[in-house]
Amino acid sequence: MAPEILENPSNTREEIMGATLATLLEHGYADLTIDKIGDEFAKSQSLIYHHYDGKDDLVLETLEFMLEAFRTKSIEGPVEEPRDALEEVVDQLFERSIDDDERQSMAALFELRAQATHDEAYRSHFNRSDDVFEDLIVDIVEAGIDRGVFQPCNPEGVAATLITMINGTIMRRSTSEDDEWVGDVREEIESYLEACVYAE
Amino acid sequence: MAPEILENPSNTREEIMGATLATLLEHGYADLTIDKIGDEFAKSQSLIYHHYDGKDDLVLETLEFMLEAFRTKSIEGPVEEPRDALEEVVDQLFERSIDDDERQSMAALFELRAQATHDEAYRSHFNRSDDVFEDLIVDIVEAGIDRGVFQPCNPEGVAATLITMINGTIMRRSTSEDDEWVGDVREEIESYLEACVYAE
Repeated sequence: MAPEILENPSNTREEIMGATLATLLEHGYADLTIDKIGDEFAKSQSLIYHHYDGKDDLVLETLEFMLEAFRTKSIEGPVEEPRDALEEVVDQLFERSIDDDERQSMAALFELRAQATHDEAYRSHFNRSDDVFEDLIVDIVEAGIDRGVFQPCNPEGVAATLITMINGTIMRRSTSEDDEWVGDVREEIESYLEACVYAE
Repeated sequence: MAPEILENPSNTREEIMGATLATLLEHGYADLTIDKIGDEFAKSQSLIYHHYDGKDDLVLETLEFMLEAFRTKSIEGPVEEPRDALEEVVDQLFERSIDDDERQSMAALFELRAQATHDEAYRSHFNRSDDVFEDLIVDIVEAGIDRGVFQPCNPEGVAATLITMINGTIMRRSTSEDDEWVGDVREEIESYLEACVYAE
């Protein structure tokens, strides 16, 4: 979730997505309604009803837009410093402490993902989202092996492991204020990367 | 989730919990109603209405009952073979392929956990559930260190890492039929345990 992408909307569609995201973060998915999104939107609510069929239609378009923005930004060029790049991923995703806004973003993301258990459109989005993050990490690991700074390891395995850790962290952080375990987990991830991924 | 615990109910309360679990696994949380639970229950529906305030009351009591049954069973004695015990945990939780019933159980568990983002009773249950599983793994790792079959490592860190992996696996398995990544993840977990936990 990167709300800043929608902070400077360049057209009505982006304004609507910005309002959707802001409302989702404030109220959570369970309490999200189109009327509440309309309250957050500066222009006429009828524009929302004109363009979208319901709250899920709005949420899914917003998720897709943010994923695409992330993907475009992340494939800017070859990975020059694979170890720095992987450490940056770990830094960003396993922060030892997060503020209330970040926890709220994670909880919203987690609630949306739970929709994927019974809603095909959410399922398809989150499978694509896992693939995008996995490809990003696979590229980093492959670059590391090519440059000889990583051991000969399985890039897909390393990527799937980190994605699984990230998803598990989002799940637990969304449902507990206790973050003590995150520092411990992060140290274990670093031990794993030192032992099984980085070259000596 | 261990449905077999409730397959031989010894009283009406356990029969009601068995019906709750069966209905939850069949319909998922979003579509769960007390009426549907009543259809699954052999005796009069009025018994359910008499004892419980609503579907969440029923679900939470069932979750607590299963957690307590698991906890009681898991603390049967000291850990004699720590490495076997940890390998059994990995075996059970990162099975390479699961059947539809197992995937449905995971999806139900995941939907319930999503309630914990906005419902204090679910939050409290799942924090307790994470603690129970974490304590189980901490006991195994401490026994391994004491017996010299594990390296001097951080038992809480190893436990939190495995719990995070398990939660992440439940999340992804609940929302995708593609299990290809699970085998990869399992190999990485085994590499991590070999490198950072088991003594040579």
